[in-house]
Amino acid sequence: MIKVVKFGGSSLASAEQFAKAGDIVRSDEDRKYVVPSAPGKRNDKDSKVTDMLYDCYRAATRQEDIRISFNRIKERYNTIINGLGLKLSLEEEYKKIEKNLKDQIGEDYAASRGEYLNGKIMAAYLGFEFIDAAEVIFFDEKGHFLSDKTNKVLKKRLHSAEKAVIPGFYGSLPDGTIKTFSRGGSDITGSIVAKAAEAGMYENWTDVSGCMVADPRIIKNPKPIRVVTYRELRELSYMGASVMHEAAVFPVRKAGIMMNIRNTNSPEDPGTLIASELPRVPRKHKVTGIAGMKGFTSILVEDSSMNDQVGYGMKLLGIFARHNIPFEHLPTGIDTMSVVVRTALFDPCRNLIMDEIRDEIGPELLFVEDHLAMIAVVGQGMAYSKGTAARIMKALSDARINIRMIDQGSSEINIIICVDEEDYENAIRSIYNEIEFTL
Amino acid sequence: MIKVVKFGGSSLASAEQFAKAGDIVRSDEDRKYVVPSAPGKRNDKDSKVTDMLYDCYRAATRQEDIRISFNRIKERYNTIINGLGLKLSLEEEYKKIEKNLKDQIGEDYAASRGEYLNGKIMAAYLGFEFIDAAEVIFFDEKGHFLSDKTNKVLKKRLHSAEKAVIPGFYGSLPDGTIKTFSRGGSDITGSIVAKAAEAGMYENWTDVSGCMVADPRIIKNPKPIRVVTYRELRELSYMGASVMHEAAVFPVRKAGIMMNIRNTNSPEDPGTLIASELPRVPRKHKVTGIAGMKGFTSILVEDSSMNDQVGYGMKLLGIFARHNIPFEHLPTGIDTMSVVVRTALFDPCRNLIMDEIRDEIGPELLFVEDHLAMIAVVGQGMAYSKGTAARIMKALSDARINIRMIDQGSSEINIIICVDEEDYENAIRSIYNEIEFTL
Repeated sequence: MIKVVKFGGSSLASAEQFAKAGDIVRSDEDRKYVVPSAPGKRNDKDSKVTDMLYDCYRAATRQEDIRISFNRIKERYNTIINGLGLKLSLEEEYKKIEKNLKDQIGEDYAASRGEYLNGKIMAAYLGFEFIDAAEVIFFDEKGHFLSDKTNKVLKKRLHSAEKAVIPGFYGSLPDGTIKTFSRGGSDITGSIVAKAAEAGMYENWTDVSGCMVADPRIIKNPKPIRVVTYRELRELSYMGASVMHEAAVFPVRKAGIMMNIRNTNSPEDPGTLIASELPRVPRKHKVTGIAGMKGFTSILVEDSSMNDQVGYGMKLLGIFARHNIPFEHLPTGIDTMSVVVRTALFDPCRNLIMDEIRDEIGPELLFVEDHLAMIAVVGQGMAYSKGTAARIMKALSDARINIRMIDQGSSEINIIICVDEEDYENAIRSIYNEIEFTL
Repeated sequence: MIKVVKFGGSSLASAEQFAKAGDIVRSDEDRKYVVPSAPGKRNDKDSKVTDMLYDCYRAATRQEDIRISFNRIKERYNTIINGLGLKLSLEEEYKKIEKNLKDQIGEDYAASRGEYLNGKIMAAYLGFEFIDAAEVIFFDEKGHFLSDKTNKVLKKRLHSAEKAVIPGFYGSLPDGTIKTFSRGGSDITGSIVAKAAEAGMYENWTDVSGCMVADPRIIKNPKPIRVVTYRELRELSYMGASVMHEAAVFPVRKAGIMMNIRNTNSPEDPGTLIASELPRVPRKHKVTGIAGMKGFTSILVEDSSMNDQVGYGMKLLGIFARHNIPFEHLPTGIDTMSVVVRTALFDPCRNLIMDEIRDEIGPELLFVEDHLAMIAVVGQGMAYSKGTAARIMKALSDARINIRMIDQGSSEINIIICVDEEDYENAIRSIYNEIEFTL
């Protein structure tokens, strides 16, 4: 089984970290393709190389002398090279890059050199072939990623290289100019490489031992998630659990490739395995994680003629759609309907929308409530675990938290609960303490 | 406080029942206006007079001899008159009605004579003035009830009559033709009279001691509901609890008049009081009733692009609206949305709708599920009673019933739970046994 291995910035911030990454790659013959990020911070006061490159480029656009700041970047790389005891000189590369920065050939180019140089070092350190991402990852004129072309070219290229390093974060436009991914960075490259390599596993090595079942800012030392499906992960991350950006997950998810989030500093930890389907072994408990967000607003409409009027709900939703505001939930009663939206999206057109609801629908009651928080308790098959909803409700009831809305959705893999913002942290804690998680 | 008193058919089926109704009216000076139904069944094998009149009229339209069947109707009334010992002859009325039936002047006319004649008897028995509904309740050419005109004329007429009997069920078209209410019958007349009389109470006397907290076909001897708000009542009746037709409730609800459902055979029972607001006395428990229905279908759409597309939900609902199918609930997940509809409404255009969803939206997954039942647990302020949802979930969990969806709506006076049809009765019983009701 081919494994594609992506290392995050903190995993490659120093020679010491590089050595850990090297050990990880060498310890498993299946780890054939490596996607490095740029060096991250070595400590709290340190800078990420990518940020240093941006600064350097902006200085160049202001016609400032960039020698000192560029020297600091060179130093970062040379320290790693020397620390690893490598006989590798990047002087030619540095010269070329410094010139290009001075010539202001592009901000994306500047930013991408962090990964590029780290890829050079990684390839030399591992004795792997170096494949420049600019030659295998493509964007169209408008900067949209070209999935099919990339997959075709990259697949062919990987076939010709038994083991290789492909720097993350960038590719090229049709004219050869460097272009970076706007969000998700090297995670996306790793996912694209995994797909093209027809890998069995995409390993994403970071500085945490995978995803946690709940937000560590609210729950002290939450349990890690062992196995999660892509769908569960999406529901968790949508509700604020910061895991992978959707764009980074899409290629492997679609190709049915498993993903494993691992900790470079604790390679013995199994981390979080993300799979399309759950392993056949039945899991003892059905909840995989809790996530949530504050900042929701509910617009309640009450009208005793609502249920007799086909299209009433549509008219209401049409007003929101016109203002380009997606709805999050639509709790419906007999004569009531609420549209739950993100406050930040609603606020700029709040007055307009309210006026339009009054003018076009004229409901008997129109009531807006801010400061709501939504909590998603996610777990595949949870709906078939008969006690879960009851335990969640009990936990909230025991904590004397007022449940404002409940939506056990059609997907049957989550229960969404709305509480007042002031109850949010307490609600998460109560649920966390009551529920047993799939581990 | 003026009270308007409506008696149902079983309350006026015989002289004995009439006497009970008379005692009830006489026992309270406030009971100034009486709205009688036509005589109902005296036993299981008996016929309602209204049905006898319809049969008689249909026989007349087939040119059959109606003498025997009309004689049976006369006999019903004469038995009541004699049983009450009244010196009242309706022979002139009978003659006129029999002639009009033969002349086929209208089915509504025929049906309405049941209430008309009963009104005559009731007025004579109580010594109240008789007001023919045809002179005070109006419909337009298309048969729509004319609320404002009726209220104006009726109010004036009632002012001139200290105590009166107004037969239920009918009024007149602009040309004077008799027109009956299509649904809700005499209950509507009572409600209209209560409004015009500016009554403080509309008493609806039936053969049950009010509404029950749950369906007696599922729960043996369920507890009665003492006090319920109009909103709670609407939610309960919408979900299948057979109480009052909405049209019968509307005039008094709007006028803020309390309604009391009483039992003619047990006048000592307080029955169910329906009020706009709850009495200020805080109620110990917050659940007022449980109701439910089978026969729902869920159409689930899953699409990973759903949450990024404003208007996705609208497009989906638009298809249902085009086919004139109201949705009941819209449970939404992150990438999923379900439209829950009544199967009976969905079935005739099931294939068309499915094709249109595929053509116009083309979701990644489209899944239809029939045989769902919805259960509403209703209680004003229930949302603020922190343990209610937990107890309901626990009851269902203990009974090992799989909750398919939960919607604690925006109205905060109900929790709607979706279960498989086969779990329906069991779910109602489990909730009933767990919950303590407002009594």
